[in-house]
Amino acid sequence: MKSEIIAVGSEMLTPHRQDTNSLFLTEKLNELGVTVTFKTIVGDRRKDLVSAFRTALGRVDIIVLMGGLGPTEDDLTREAVAETLGVKLKRDGSQVAALATRMAAWRIPIPDNNFKQADLIEGAVLLPNANGSAPGQWLDIDFEGFRKLIMLIPGPPSECKPLFEAECIPHLREALPKRSLAKRSLKAAMIPESQADKLLAPIYTTYADVETTILAHNGDIQLLLHCVKKNQAQAQQRVDELAGKMEEVLDDWLYSSHDESLEQIVLYYLGLRQATLATAESCTGGLIAQRITSVPGSSRSFLGGVVVYSNELKTQFAGVPPELIEQHGAVSEEVARALAEGIRRRTGATIGLGITGLAGPGGGTETKPVGLVYIAVGDAQKTDVLERNFRGSRTRVREWAAQQALDLVRRRLM
Amino acid sequence: MKSEIIAVGSEMLTPHRQDTNSLFLTEKLNELGVTVTFKTIVGDRRKDLVSAFRTALGRVDIIVLMGGLGPTEDDLTREAVAETLGVKLKRDGSQVAALATRMAAWRIPIPDNNFKQADLIEGAVLLPNANGSAPGQWLDIDFEGFRKLIMLIPGPPSECKPLFEAECIPHLREALPKRSLAKRSLKAAMIPESQADKLLAPIYTTYADVETTILAHNGDIQLLLHCVKKNQAQAQQRVDELAGKMEEVLDDWLYSSHDESLEQIVLYYLGLRQATLATAESCTGGLIAQRITSVPGSSRSFLGGVVVYSNELKTQFAGVPPELIEQHGAVSEEVARALAEGIRRRTGATIGLGITGLAGPGGGTETKPVGLVYIAVGDAQKTDVLERNFRGSRTRVREWAAQQALDLVRRRLM
Repeated sequence: MKSEIIAVGSEMLTPHRQDTNSLFLTEKLNELGVTVTFKTIVGDRRKDLVSAFRTALGRVDIIVLMGGLGPTEDDLTREAVAETLGVKLKRDGSQVAALATRMAAWRIPIPDNNFKQADLIEGAVLLPNANGSAPGQWLDIDFEGFRKLIMLIPGPPSECKPLFEAECIPHLREALPKRSLAKRSLKAAMIPESQADKLLAPIYTTYADVETTILAHNGDIQLLLHCVKKNQAQAQQRVDELAGKMEEVLDDWLYSSHDESLEQIVLYYLGLRQATLATAESCTGGLIAQRITSVPGSSRSFLGGVVVYSNELKTQFAGVPPELIEQHGAVSEEVARALAEGIRRRTGATIGLGITGLAGPGGGTETKPVGLVYIAVGDAQKTDVLERNFRGSRTRVREWAAQQALDLVRRRLM
Repeated sequence: MKSEIIAVGSEMLTPHRQDTNSLFLTEKLNELGVTVTFKTIVGDRRKDLVSAFRTALGRVDIIVLMGGLGPTEDDLTREAVAETLGVKLKRDGSQVAALATRMAAWRIPIPDNNFKQADLIEGAVLLPNANGSAPGQWLDIDFEGFRKLIMLIPGPPSECKPLFEAECIPHLREALPKRSLAKRSLKAAMIPESQADKLLAPIYTTYADVETTILAHNGDIQLLLHCVKKNQAQAQQRVDELAGKMEEVLDDWLYSSHDESLEQIVLYYLGLRQATLATAESCTGGLIAQRITSVPGSSRSFLGGVVVYSNELKTQFAGVPPELIEQHGAVSEEVARALAEGIRRRTGATIGLGITGLAGPGGGTETKPVGLVYIAVGDAQKTDVLERNFRGSRTRVREWAAQQALDLVRRRLM
């Protein structure tokens, strides 16, 4: 079954706003075995809306219209759908009563145009909206000899998503042949995307019934596997089988088999080993601490850290000897090691992480170019230092460096 | 003039990827006085591509097709456009030579299908691609009695954007009546969006020729003003006049009149006052340090900071007396003050920032609910502490708290 998502709203045709609900809707439609063949974004003009809807009727079986259901003059989705189908709008009595009750609670005079939200397209079923005043509508009709399933749902994400899940999905399940989706998400750190694809393509291409998507971002690779079958157990078995083979070739690049973030995994291992972590960051400027502390409950294993931008603070907070900085420079293997060992000693953490580098864009030299980063991870036994050269913008260098640092901590804990 | 952007690529019809180039293209088209009336996203199927392009021909004057110009079998934009217009593709000799030269440098055997990138639609002008092997194409044609401007451009952002700027814009300028855009961006911190709109709506609604967009995100408000006129000076005068009136009512909520970020402004004021800053963060976990250090050159005014999650580290790194924590709790006005004063003293910074709070989701009590945050800013003269209650997720509480903290530093420096 082919579908089209039509996002309605002039603000999504400016350079500043973008439709994002459609990613959620696509995921939900795919789970029912429905492909999204087109997405259209159209403004609040009735003529344009009619054009977009008429086009969709001619090329897909399932149409989701999102937005344009509110009370203002600009909200014209109901009107445009009725016009295109050549049917009437009828004000729904029980919905008028529901709106009046809802609005009475606001204790302010209610403009009459609010009641247009109670207008129902002839032949449509009303879809209650638990999170807003504009209900959705469901149509299962014959149009020029073809069956069409049409949904009108509100635009705000806080209304659109729960309404689609609670109301549209049950209607779709009933209308469509039964399908089940199984999915898995594997994650790997610091493996180049091309190398991952070279390792994995020979495997996943033999699973034609499992859709594999590779997403890469600054040292993080996510593999999304998904399989739709009539039988849930069969779909799950195929996905798990492929995931198992991928896990094998990814070896220790793989850090998560069930969609956890790298910082969650680091915290998981710290908890398992009853270990604690402290950080001394220069070039990443708090990015590593920020990622770790974004996880609820991180305070159990993360003691804290220092952001030591100036040389004086490297000495004061992490005990880096000033002569070491003078001799080797702030960006050096020696200073990274001293940062890791110093922060570990001072905080009493099991593991100390030290990082120093040149994030740029300025400050590079022939021997120490922008992107040069030293990362040290140490425990009571030993401290290892890794030298890396990252390329790109300040943001990119910082994000790669933070990812590499977290991955080194993970590897130390494994 | 109405336009439509057609983004071509099956990956943009999955739940994982989204077209973002169109925001850039919309901005550039708007600057030329061209409205984007529709956006369509279509997969790599020839039939669907023809449907999307034919629909666009029927409803707009300017069509930008983005993607599907590469060498693979899935790259079908050229073929679909030629088919719809009823014209032929012709292999361009000079482009074949250029491709051969380019590919010879790779020192690997080149599959023949690479040369389909040299196929030119009859009547099209070739648009050189400085950043990739697939050139763009420009058509200025009569279609069923109407003039249509059609552009085919590559999909990867690193090729799409420079090619559009260097090649499409000059063609469009020549084809379109002359228009000039003037724009301004104002930014304000911590003013509620509804209050900003209440203050500003009576002003901007009287400027019908200036388009005003209000974007709000976790305590940050951005006002985008833009005006298109035949005469550049006139457009600029209207935008500046409106901006001036808005600046007046926004008063000291306003932190930037020319699009700088809040952290840039804080660093600007620090530089101006020859002052330095150091931070002691608990609940924000490095987020504030991370925002400040994301700005190139921040090391001149930002000495560094500490992320003190455990009580012990609050004492060790910021000199917070243990009995203060015991008496008032780690989340208290007194501890925030001690963090700010302690980090200032220990680092020798002009200004110390201390922050402690409950980011959640767990750990809240009746008297200290999740979202409670204390922020202290101190210099040699005095330390002020602000108590706030933020609502929402852990991420939201942390982002609001960081924004509030940076704004307090800005206000102290003003």
